[in-house]
Amino acid sequence: MKYALAAAAAVMLIAGPISAQTAPQTVVEDFKPSSLNQPGQAYPQVNSQGYARFRIVAPEAQNVKVSLGLGGRGGTVLTKGADGVWTGTSEGPLDEGFHYYHLTVDGGTFNDPGTLNFYGSIRWESGIEIPAHDADFYALKDVPHGRVSQILFPSPSTGTQRRAFVYTPPEYDKNPSARYPVLYLQHGWGEDETAWSNQGHANLIMDNLIAAGKTRPFIIVMTYGMTNDVRPGGLGSFDIKPFQTVMIDELIPYVDSHFRTLSDQPHRAMAGLSMGGFETKLITFANLDTFAYIGLLSGGTISLDDVNKTPGFRDKVKLAFVSFGSRELEGGRAGPPGQPRQDPRANAEALKASGFNSVFYVSPNTAHEFLSWRRSLRELAPLLFKD
Amino acid sequence: MKYALAAAAAVMLIAGPISAQTAPQTVVEDFKPSSLNQPGQAYPQVNSQGYARFRIVAPEAQNVKVSLGLGGRGGTVLTKGADGVWTGTSEGPLDEGFHYYHLTVDGGTFNDPGTLNFYGSIRWESGIEIPAHDADFYALKDVPHGRVSQILFPSPSTGTQRRAFVYTPPEYDKNPSARYPVLYLQHGWGEDETAWSNQGHANLIMDNLIAAGKTRPFIIVMTYGMTNDVRPGGLGSFDIKPFQTVMIDELIPYVDSHFRTLSDQPHRAMAGLSMGGFETKLITFANLDTFAYIGLLSGGTISLDDVNKTPGFRDKVKLAFVSFGSRELEGGRAGPPGQPRQDPRANAEALKASGFNSVFYVSPNTAHEFLSWRRSLRELAPLLFKD
Repeated sequence: MKYALAAAAAVMLIAGPISAQTAPQTVVEDFKPSSLNQPGQAYPQVNSQGYARFRIVAPEAQNVKVSLGLGGRGGTVLTKGADGVWTGTSEGPLDEGFHYYHLTVDGGTFNDPGTLNFYGSIRWESGIEIPAHDADFYALKDVPHGRVSQILFPSPSTGTQRRAFVYTPPEYDKNPSARYPVLYLQHGWGEDETAWSNQGHANLIMDNLIAAGKTRPFIIVMTYGMTNDVRPGGLGSFDIKPFQTVMIDELIPYVDSHFRTLSDQPHRAMAGLSMGGFETKLITFANLDTFAYIGLLSGGTISLDDVNKTPGFRDKVKLAFVSFGSRELEGGRAGPPGQPRQDPRANAEALKASGFNSVFYVSPNTAHEFLSWRRSLRELAPLLFKD
Repeated sequence: MKYALAAAAAVMLIAGPISAQTAPQTVVEDFKPSSLNQPGQAYPQVNSQGYARFRIVAPEAQNVKVSLGLGGRGGTVLTKGADGVWTGTSEGPLDEGFHYYHLTVDGGTFNDPGTLNFYGSIRWESGIEIPAHDADFYALKDVPHGRVSQILFPSPSTGTQRRAFVYTPPEYDKNPSARYPVLYLQHGWGEDETAWSNQGHANLIMDNLIAAGKTRPFIIVMTYGMTNDVRPGGLGSFDIKPFQTVMIDELIPYVDSHFRTLSDQPHRAMAGLSMGGFETKLITFANLDTFAYIGLLSGGTISLDDVNKTPGFRDKVKLAFVSFGSRELEGGRAGPPGQPRQDPRANAEALKASGFNSVFYVSPNTAHEFLSWRRSLRELAPLLFKD
């Protein structure tokens, strides 16, 4: 599994918004507050081109910088006005979708007091949303809504009560005898079990897909993947076993005994983004009698060789879904450092040519970020639990 | 209702930790990270006496202050060490329990990057927990846990999909035909629907009470009370009608149709803290056929006169529960400014003497803060739904 480790490290390091390579343009003055601002907060703002404008009050500060800006240029440096307020606009448009960021104020790391916070990079970060042209699929709409429930499940292996969030579809409570398949859905490195709801809008994506009749209703379970002790570059020491024990021996039995699930292998899937995809591959390949569907979102690749050397895979697994943001596939970015590059699209196509149900999806004009993963969930959900 | 408005304003303004009036003492060097720190963060820390110690990295800053400290002394001023790191310890011990705070860095308001964030004062604030001697009743323990579910319910009156959190007791999913009473539980001014779970640990308090056989299992519903457009001092303009419409015409019918509730008046309660208590009094008094139990937590008082002038109150209402933190009752602090002072204890006793089921609770050595309200919920829950 040494190769897989290196591959996961590679995709993991492509974090941060990699902006569109556009020619200089006139900034259109139609800035509006970001949808992720705290109630009543006017800044940060976003314009129709995807530029972000920041405003920070710190009259006695010496320097204020925003970590977000054009890729490789070190963010957006704010300038102080006569009123003691620091302002600045990103050098160029940012990619559509969600971006983490933070401030550097006089050498200290702080969040923008204008925004909501999102857990990423092993800290609660500021977040900004550049409206996507296809934002409708994850919008809060007047359709029946499922619930996102916080559960606390006993974990003897870690000696704690662990937390997970469980999405149940809108009809779950109206139909007290119906049972549902389950997707176990993992966050990435630096994130936690809150990410798929807060940043990913997984619940709204499902509500909208179900309302449109595009997916079978199913349950989604999101828990902490115990990934954050692994620093980038230190992945060689990552051991999947502690999390696999929590997932297989503790969480799944708890969910199957506390929710109305279809608890057989054909009705259980696992998917994850970035390092969560890496975990998904390790856990599903080692537990073919538990999971029938596999999704890796910017989190590695499944090759013909992987499948051929895994007895039972072709019979038991019904889908291998692999996705990336388009910018992750540009310029060799998906190549693991110090390893021969694998082409995840070629792998997916070879697997499909061999007669296996392999699906490869590329999110247009996005990087290793949540819009790639929101879209990937939208693509993946309708492919699951086809029985 | 003009008097009630002023009373609510008065209790609302007693925010902030009012520390114990103790003689100077030697600070014991047994500081440990606060339980509310972000994962892996060593600061802020708390010692066994209740002192708080802060550490902020901002090497180029001119001044760093923490809003938390001894009452009336303007917080804790940090000093910069040779390493560029700002540190400081509160001037005295803080009251046990949860406190909101924030930093002032070079004149700007920021959160402490070491802590989790909690919605209060109409912003996501930093939080610190001074371990309480009785913390066991809200601790995360190895007992069966209920769920806290985020629901999104349609609200035609406000043209939105509104959010609420719903606590269901541990047995809810195991007993698919059982129905449960419901407590509607409101946050205070500056807070929102996340407060009772995040700051209040309402779910853990209930889990522990139920495990100990001390309360009947029931559902708790927590939603946003639409209070935050009201600035302190501007309460005279507060209109309960928009929230009352959401509560009575939208939320309650949604909960009764999506959860297995006992939906008659004897099985519905409303309680709230601070301005949520003010809302509770207004809504319950105007809807006696909807609620049978009333709880005001640091949120006003119910007098004999209130009851006598409200037809049907004595027949329909089964409990009037009123509580305060002890420090709120010291030195006339509970008196509304510019109004004759009402003594909430005397009111409660007069009501009880008149033959009504009136209960008055005082949380020892706490102010207008969440430990008062955690304890109040612990006291209130066993008194509800006695049929």
